[in-house]
Amino acid sequence: MLRVDINNIFPFVEETALKSMHDELDRAHRSLEAGDGLGSDFLGWLRLPSQYDREEFQRIKKSAEKIKSDSQVLVVIGIGGSYLGARAAIEFLRSPNYNLLDKDTPDIFFVGNNLSSSAISEIIDLIGNRDFSINVISKSGTTTEPAIAFRIFKKLIEERYDAEEARGRIYATTDSSKGALKNLADTEGYESFVIPDNIGGRYSVLTAVGLLPMAVAGIDIDALMAGAQAAMEAFAQKSFENPVWQYVAARNLLYRNGKTIEILAAYEPSFRFMAEWWKQLYGESEGKDGKGIYPASVDFTADLHSMGQYIQEGMRNLFETVIHIKNAPGSVVIEADEDNIDGLNFLAGKDLNFVNEQAFRGTLLAHVDGGVPNIIIDLNTIDEENFGWIVYFFELACGISGYVLGVNPFNQPGVEAYKKNMFALLGKPGFEEQRDILMERLK
Amino acid sequence: MLRVDINNIFPFVEETALKSMHDELDRAHRSLEAGDGLGSDFLGWLRLPSQYDREEFQRIKKSAEKIKSDSQVLVVIGIGGSYLGARAAIEFLRSPNYNLLDKDTPDIFFVGNNLSSSAISEIIDLIGNRDFSINVISKSGTTTEPAIAFRIFKKLIEERYDAEEARGRIYATTDSSKGALKNLADTEGYESFVIPDNIGGRYSVLTAVGLLPMAVAGIDIDALMAGAQAAMEAFAQKSFENPVWQYVAARNLLYRNGKTIEILAAYEPSFRFMAEWWKQLYGESEGKDGKGIYPASVDFTADLHSMGQYIQEGMRNLFETVIHIKNAPGSVVIEADEDNIDGLNFLAGKDLNFVNEQAFRGTLLAHVDGGVPNIIIDLNTIDEENFGWIVYFFELACGISGYVLGVNPFNQPGVEAYKKNMFALLGKPGFEEQRDILMERLK
Repeated sequence: MLRVDINNIFPFVEETALKSMHDELDRAHRSLEAGDGLGSDFLGWLRLPSQYDREEFQRIKKSAEKIKSDSQVLVVIGIGGSYLGARAAIEFLRSPNYNLLDKDTPDIFFVGNNLSSSAISEIIDLIGNRDFSINVISKSGTTTEPAIAFRIFKKLIEERYDAEEARGRIYATTDSSKGALKNLADTEGYESFVIPDNIGGRYSVLTAVGLLPMAVAGIDIDALMAGAQAAMEAFAQKSFENPVWQYVAARNLLYRNGKTIEILAAYEPSFRFMAEWWKQLYGESEGKDGKGIYPASVDFTADLHSMGQYIQEGMRNLFETVIHIKNAPGSVVIEADEDNIDGLNFLAGKDLNFVNEQAFRGTLLAHVDGGVPNIIIDLNTIDEENFGWIVYFFELACGISGYVLGVNPFNQPGVEAYKKNMFALLGKPGFEEQRDILMERLK
Repeated sequence: MLRVDINNIFPFVEETALKSMHDELDRAHRSLEAGDGLGSDFLGWLRLPSQYDREEFQRIKKSAEKIKSDSQVLVVIGIGGSYLGARAAIEFLRSPNYNLLDKDTPDIFFVGNNLSSSAISEIIDLIGNRDFSINVISKSGTTTEPAIAFRIFKKLIEERYDAEEARGRIYATTDSSKGALKNLADTEGYESFVIPDNIGGRYSVLTAVGLLPMAVAGIDIDALMAGAQAAMEAFAQKSFENPVWQYVAARNLLYRNGKTIEILAAYEPSFRFMAEWWKQLYGESEGKDGKGIYPASVDFTADLHSMGQYIQEGMRNLFETVIHIKNAPGSVVIEADEDNIDGLNFLAGKDLNFVNEQAFRGTLLAHVDGGVPNIIIDLNTIDEENFGWIVYFFELACGISGYVLGVNPFNQPGVEAYKKNMFALLGKPGFEEQRDILMERLK
């Protein structure tokens, strides 16, 4: 269950302006559903929560069981959308300290998302002699970072186990029919899962891309898909009663009023990577054609003691979207102290979550008073179902918001620019001419 | 050793504009040194690398040895500047996976930097039956988050050990003479270290605030202070030869030209919390009076596959400051593969760090071509000495930059606003009137 509260944008935009967005929102929402808008080849996520492949879903659960039974470590190889969703889910639903926990599920290491020698060496050391499996996630199989990592870990697993055993420990999440990784998976007989053609990386968390690592971490993926499906049904509504409409209208109005930075804030440290997932979703969908809100994030209350000053009194070109967990899990009661030297006895008997709640409410008022519009997203609690709700909420809102902004929210043409230069500088065959030009510029 | 390269700002600002900033920079730098500018009561960090308290420094090392010998876990309690510096150093110089490493130094958990019940409960579980010590870091001893955490962990340690043993396991980093924590430390006889009156939280990483946790993690704090001292001497120069001047001039010129977001980027995942430390330093120092560059950060190459699209093609109101590690540690050579199904054999024999270097160079050109000015900060390698260099670099640049911007870079008046509201909502004695007002607004 998820609600949105946009009452704290009204000191900054007119309520009439909001109402006047009705037709824009309606058009964008219907265009998305009809599949007649920009990038409509990539709308597979829209009805995914009800239309996902049940046979594959069962295989994901079966593979997760096998990995749990024969591996102490799962190495997940992927970058961008093939990395952030699963990591976000595991940190949010299990813990940011997941690998440190005493648990009956494997440690999970995410590799192939950077080009640091020391980072990848360290993961090899951390695996040590433990039994491990690999989930390599790549549509093409040729993206530089994951492809290099897969070379390294494939060799490691083939040295550790005999050929058949090694093949049985590699799980490929890739294209359904073509590409280097799909070909290899077919040749070698890896268990493989599909990244659908009509779902881009940043919208793929509810496919095998996210689901297999999550299931291995002990996350209930049935409950998660049920949450997403409930959200899908609830958010189909075409009116301002729809929390998705409220969020889209609010952020676009604020953007038009010069609020060009959106700060996603949460009061649970486990949300950190959810914010990273959100940044990719919105930054990559809207940041094009010289437009788009810049997505940033903070972890409260920690960052009230770092970015808090800026938010309260810096440039007034920002707004906050605050994740508010209504029933935060856990309970720690503050006890009375005889000496009361810290003066906190007025909190004796109170739960820490109650204090967190007052920090949320106090900050909301302080920031609005300071000139920062606030959008509140209420989530019931932290569990699989609510994860499904918030993921679908942000995905649908992103698609509609991109249309309202007038961009194609499903492509990412700008990501190629650095790759081309990098290939040229690395001496990749076919990039010789570009290489000469760049080398001249770098002199 | 640290260099700055600002050649990639000149497509966006005039070289003459840079030169014309000479007098402004000279005035700001001299004012800082003379102590006649805004916030001059807080300049203790300026000459700290040569003037630190040698007796205390030895006690820090001695305490670190004791903790290493009698504890498997150190709990560090602090928020904001009493947290970010030490965590940044440990992640950067040891590893983001520090607690997972097989090592001869204690695990280190940072608590008291949030109000999440589940987060703090988890740390208690993670300590389990292991021997532990506490380093509580707070100037006053009454800041809500760390004070609550200290109540909880003080009780835990007093239940675990007899009174004398418990007292010997608590290390207080606090005011030299006053405040709740100082009083308690004196009464109980805790080993205690000083947060100097003339050093604000965000400039305190080279005091006991940062040094004790770092020393416990096995970081060579002598080498670190030597690096900072070398930086202090090098950066005293009053000319554009000074990398500090180059950075300050570049970012302020870009800001004046509408580039209001600075993205700190690095190509090593271990830099993530260094960026968080930097965000506090700059955001809290400059974000006031409706002014200041918004500090953001990305981890490359990971985030080239998330925020990369926005940076390449989104709103053109941003610039990048890129940390470039010239000799990145570690070595992983990419091997040839018989089948070459991923097409990466053109990289065979190359080190992953070489690929990372080309990603850096290729991205630089792509982003500049896309309209994003780039400032490059060259660091020799990742070690204690270079940590000292970059910390002093950013601190000095921040002080000068704040003066150039025309703000007091050493206060943080805006941090009080949320605290007052929170106290009122929590029912803290003395805030009754404010409470009634807020409760009415929250209806």
